[in-house]
Amino acid sequence: MNILITAGGTQEEIDSVRSITNHSTGQLGSIIADTFAKGGATVTYVCGNAAQLPAEKGITIIRIKDTNSLMKQLAKLLETHKYHSIIHAMAVSDFTPTATLNLDDIAQNILQTIESGTHTIQKIKNAITAAAKPLSENKISSCNPDLMLLLAPTPKIISQIKQKQSGTILVGFKLLSGVTEDHLLSVATDLLHRNSCDYVLANDQQGITCNHHKAILIDKAGIISKAETKQEIANLLLNTISERVNQ
Amino acid sequence: MNILITAGGTQEEIDSVRSITNHSTGQLGSIIADTFAKGGATVTYVCGNAAQLPAEKGITIIRIKDTNSLMKQLAKLLETHKYHSIIHAMAVSDFTPTATLNLDDIAQNILQTIESGTHTIQKIKNAITAAAKPLSENKISSCNPDLMLLLAPTPKIISQIKQKQSGTILVGFKLLSGVTEDHLLSVATDLLHRNSCDYVLANDQQGITCNHHKAILIDKAGIISKAETKQEIANLLLNTISERVNQ
Repeated sequence: MNILITAGGTQEEIDSVRSITNHSTGQLGSIIADTFAKGGATVTYVCGNAAQLPAEKGITIIRIKDTNSLMKQLAKLLETHKYHSIIHAMAVSDFTPTATLNLDDIAQNILQTIESGTHTIQKIKNAITAAAKPLSENKISSCNPDLMLLLAPTPKIISQIKQKQSGTILVGFKLLSGVTEDHLLSVATDLLHRNSCDYVLANDQQGITCNHHKAILIDKAGIISKAETKQEIANLLLNTISERVNQ
Repeated sequence: MNILITAGGTQEEIDSVRSITNHSTGQLGSIIADTFAKGGATVTYVCGNAAQLPAEKGITIIRIKDTNSLMKQLAKLLETHKYHSIIHAMAVSDFTPTATLNLDDIAQNILQTIESGTHTIQKIKNAITAAAKPLSENKISSCNPDLMLLLAPTPKIISQIKQKQSGTILVGFKLLSGVTEDHLLSVATDLLHRNSCDYVLANDQQGITCNHHKAILIDKAGIISKAETKQEIANLLLNTISERVNQ
């Protein structure tokens, strides 16, 4: 059984010394990787720079930094390898910083737009984005009051997986924070349908402590099973996917 | 000799799963801490959550997360301890995120301001900041196009140190990226004067690789010495500070 697991978090660069970091430790992903490797699977582990690594021998480890490098790495892997299952546990940034803005610059631009005559909503929007200064590799000066960071949505990597390898068993992850179980399940089900996932593991940050990790595994038909620890989650995934592969 | 060293980087929370991270690994700080401990100093090491730790025994380690918690921690330490020297190597964030903004909301607010009659630059600025939504602890939704992050300047912690402990020998750090030596020295000298530092270690990211770390130690009179590696920097600081303490 050939398995690809993503884990940890991405780092989207703001400048040469700062980035927007997704906090995932990679602990859950590393336990899943170890559990599949112990179960006899060939495991490739694609993870963020700071992610915890699995302990089992023979696991291929590939480190990536940001959403863009993850996308390229996965495209390469999916072109050259066939995976029975892809378990996409990585906390991928939804946004990447593209430019800085300054309150003064925006206000000046808008004033010019108003004074030039017509002021439609689109013209005002254009005046705002015209004040954006693309990020450079150098460090943003610390003498910069009223600074704003413009964020652009990153590509939805999970949505590309089945397009590239339709036969793989795709497991998505949905992490919310402080929501009801109904809401969590509804968002997880939406993720499952939108990205042609076979399964989604739904979890809430408030159900995660050092020793506990509450999670619910769902498929199109609804809830498959619940888990209370990271190891239970890993076992649940191994059993569910092995059974499906062996069908 | 009682020494306080700060090292690593801060993490300013955006929401429950993301933060703005300053990248410093804490490697230089940990080598400085080890060098002073080997030299017989009593060392307290205040560092970011991901920072490398010194290896020598007997060093007091205190971990902090963001600029605010660093400020509180230092205030407590400076109230209760007297340090011969404070070596402030930590990469402290210049900004902390306070709110999200959305291009649509800003444009709508400005349109209302225009339609209400007068439109001064201040009214436009107010209309922009009125569109800001304070950050909550929960995760920012991923369905959020044209998102901006409003950043507020953090307090300049280094400027508070001599106010709290005027007798300490204060070492500031200035890291720039891709500048001339003249420019680096000019910015470092400015930092020294503004914050009543006794010394500033000036370095440029482009002079830092795995095995090399170019740096220049300055005081009010100018350049004291240059170093080429992290260990040379640590030795230079130990010698300079020990000499001054023993005067």
